[in-house]
Amino acid sequence: MGSRDDDSQSTEGQGYAADINSIREAQARIAPYVHKTPILSSTSIDAIAGKQLFFKCECFQKAGAFKIRGASNSIFALDDNQASKGVVTHSSGNHAAAVALAAKLRGIPAYIVIPKNAPACKVDNVKRYGGRVIWSDANMESRESIARRVQEETGAVLVHPFNDKYTISGQGTVSLELLEQVPEIDTIVVPISGGGLISGVALAAKAINPSIRILAAEPKGANDSAQSKAAGRIIKLATTDTIADGLRAFLGDLTWPVVRDLVDDIIVVDDNAIVDAMKMCYETLKVAVEPSGAIGLAAVLSDEFKQSSAYHESSKIGIIVSGGNVDLRLLWDSLYK
Amino acid sequence: MGSRDDDSQSTEGQGYAADINSIREAQARIAPYVHKTPILSSTSIDAIAGKQLFFKCECFQKAGAFKIRGASNSIFALDDNQASKGVVTHSSGNHAAAVALAAKLRGIPAYIVIPKNAPACKVDNVKRYGGRVIWSDANMESRESIARRVQEETGAVLVHPFNDKYTISGQGTVSLELLEQVPEIDTIVVPISGGGLISGVALAAKAINPSIRILAAEPKGANDSAQSKAAGRIIKLATTDTIADGLRAFLGDLTWPVVRDLVDDIIVVDDNAIVDAMKMCYETLKVAVEPSGAIGLAAVLSDEFKQSSAYHESSKIGIIVSGGNVDLRLLWDSLYK
Repeated sequence: MGSRDDDSQSTEGQGYAADINSIREAQARIAPYVHKTPILSSTSIDAIAGKQLFFKCECFQKAGAFKIRGASNSIFALDDNQASKGVVTHSSGNHAAAVALAAKLRGIPAYIVIPKNAPACKVDNVKRYGGRVIWSDANMESRESIARRVQEETGAVLVHPFNDKYTISGQGTVSLELLEQVPEIDTIVVPISGGGLISGVALAAKAINPSIRILAAEPKGANDSAQSKAAGRIIKLATTDTIADGLRAFLGDLTWPVVRDLVDDIIVVDDNAIVDAMKMCYETLKVAVEPSGAIGLAAVLSDEFKQSSAYHESSKIGIIVSGGNVDLRLLWDSLYK
Repeated sequence: MGSRDDDSQSTEGQGYAADINSIREAQARIAPYVHKTPILSSTSIDAIAGKQLFFKCECFQKAGAFKIRGASNSIFALDDNQASKGVVTHSSGNHAAAVALAAKLRGIPAYIVIPKNAPACKVDNVKRYGGRVIWSDANMESRESIARRVQEETGAVLVHPFNDKYTISGQGTVSLELLEQVPEIDTIVVPISGGGLISGVALAAKAINPSIRILAAEPKGANDSAQSKAAGRIIKLATTDTIADGLRAFLGDLTWPVVRDLVDDIIVVDDNAIVDAMKMCYETLKVAVEPSGAIGLAAVLSDEFKQSSAYHESSKIGIIVSGGNVDLRLLWDSLYK
């Protein structure tokens, strides 16, 4: 992290890594490179949820996930000298593809460190966009050390998947769009992993409407954020176990303060609920959603949410469907095996 | 057909069953009951097609297909006296669900004659919307005779799936929306079955832009429209055999003149190409599309199209993705068995 400049911690306001200004700047910077994704709704699903739901479909985003927002903001903010040596990142998939695509759009090389357990469809995306794939072991230490070595060897700039001002600011543009499209939303449900998306979403949404509720949705098998909120400090897990391959990272020092202060609650759901939500997305919403993208719906349909005060106080809920890069075979196996 | 009034053949202009005025009236009438569906695009698919494609996603429409447009136009055009006895239709699925939903919205009974070979997910939709299911054999004679008997017994008004002024006018609203959303489209590709959708689409689009090209996409195993165009008269087939369960009907006396005069060409594709297009819709466009809804993409990617003059003369192509009601198991079986 800390590419481009060293002011990640010194932005205005309350000292978070990003703010409404950096997010609006990101929106202007990335506009040529991203889709404004549509909102879908379903009266059938609303009837099941007992709430009016607005699905912000980032599965239709370029490269199939919201990640292009942060990646293109990071990469197009580089000056020509920094950019010329290329960029490097480590990622299980969606961020990797987004960095590869944004680098291709800028005309610079992208070195992508990918853990061996990444889904095939996500690796294919990286290759399709011309990313140079470098394999690592599945654990974060291997990913990070290999990425560091590539940095040293090439002079490439690291584009961090979440713990970076430009990444967070780019992801926050989801929130700006959502609140332009459906201003009356009172609650936003966001998948949480490293916290880049939810930090950007929360910072933008609470700047626009301080009373808006931000809820995180987290898989039971990687519930480090819920544990961190409870403990009041960053908790990292020894292992994770969830079908949601995009939600296995832990909070960073730039995302944790935002999660600590601006995320109202974290709803933890198990993998069965995620798979049920994926099926509902396919059969009723008619959308291909990856496990990490379906978790928001799973959270809204969970007993934990229905028994919370947030349920009774919410009426119009935005759900960020973060991505759609799913192997069809994985969906099938999850449902019927 | 011939419900509501008897002017189906006496509209303005060139004597077709509908025109831009009846389609604009339909748009105003049905606005409270339908979604304005989004347009999706994919640079990856554009690169494969060699054209800029705009997918009009009626799979996200209420009840999962464009059919609610015609059904709600028909049902809300009834006077209270006509409506009080309810409505009846026969359909393999999407029109049936749409009639059930529109009748529910109007608060009147819907009697739905469904052939025994209809996909389970479509029958479920009819029941979910409160339609009263009456089973028939798969053939059109059985469907029509049972629907007639219900009409006689109940006094219900027939809502024809395609051969009706109000149905055609309702379906034509797809075209109005598409050309509002992407005015620069030069070609529209539309699935063809009984011809209700393509008639409405062609009548609206050519009224707005007479030079626009209208191409039909038809399955090889139910290519009655292509045969009809070649013969210069309505051809009906003894049997049909295609995975596209929504495209097995034949043209009617109100849709044939429009298809004859305003449809520029019919592209015939086989079931393998339809399945490949469904897979591409799922994996790249991130959309659940039924076989009948994927046929437009299959047509655009076909050798037949690439070798036609229409290919060289087109640049920005609208593809009507007509519906998304697909059993996940059917998709899986089609792809991997």
